[in-house]
Amino acid sequence: MATTMLALYKRPEGGDEALDEFLRRYHEEHLPLMARVPGLRETVVERVVQHLYGEDIVLVARMLFDDRAALDAAMTTDEMRAAGRNLREIAPGIVTLVVAEEADA
Amino acid sequence: MATTMLALYKRPEGGDEALDEFLRRYHEEHLPLMARVPGLRETVVERVVQHLYGEDIVLVARMLFDDRAALDAAMTTDEMRAAGRNLREIAPGIVTLVVAEEADA
Repeated sequence: MATTMLALYKRPEGGDEALDEFLRRYHEEHLPLMARVPGLRETVVERVVQHLYGEDIVLVARMLFDDRAALDAAMTTDEMRAAGRNLREIAPGIVTLVVAEEADA
Repeated sequence: MATTMLALYKRPEGGDEALDEFLRRYHEEHLPLMARVPGLRETVVERVVQHLYGEDIVLVARMLFDDRAALDAAMTTDEMRAAGRNLREIAPGIVTLVVAEEADA
């Protein structure tokens, strides 16, 4: 069963300038680092175009792995550690990171 | 371009019993109500199996529409209003709801 690492980014403090800077560094720094992680099959990035209720999420990234074992193995790699360090630098206090699997019907 | 309504549910207060009750009502009440919404192409429900960082999200639902116009039309229907009323009843204070679209590469 495919396993997803789901990253949810809240709007950073500092207005449009801070948001643009986060988005720029996310695409220019973080995505290339994540692309090097062994076992990562695909990354789908979505921008929030309308906020309806609750937390002010601005960006959603779905990182797909073949299964839980592939994700667990990826978590121990130097490449994932480098991506994690970058994330703490570009997205302090705004990221939620969870592992999700499709629920049984 | 496909448009997604993304619902993120935090862990309800009240321990495992409250979580089980929320999940039961979500599947037994909310999903059947959403299935009646005109224009909804597909709903993908994922359970969080591991929490890594940030908010304590327990459930993620992706409701797919053909495009933004289809979602906008759906938002005005009695079926969507009924699903919204149910959501406020079963998930007070724990839901984040946003509209997301895949970012350009």
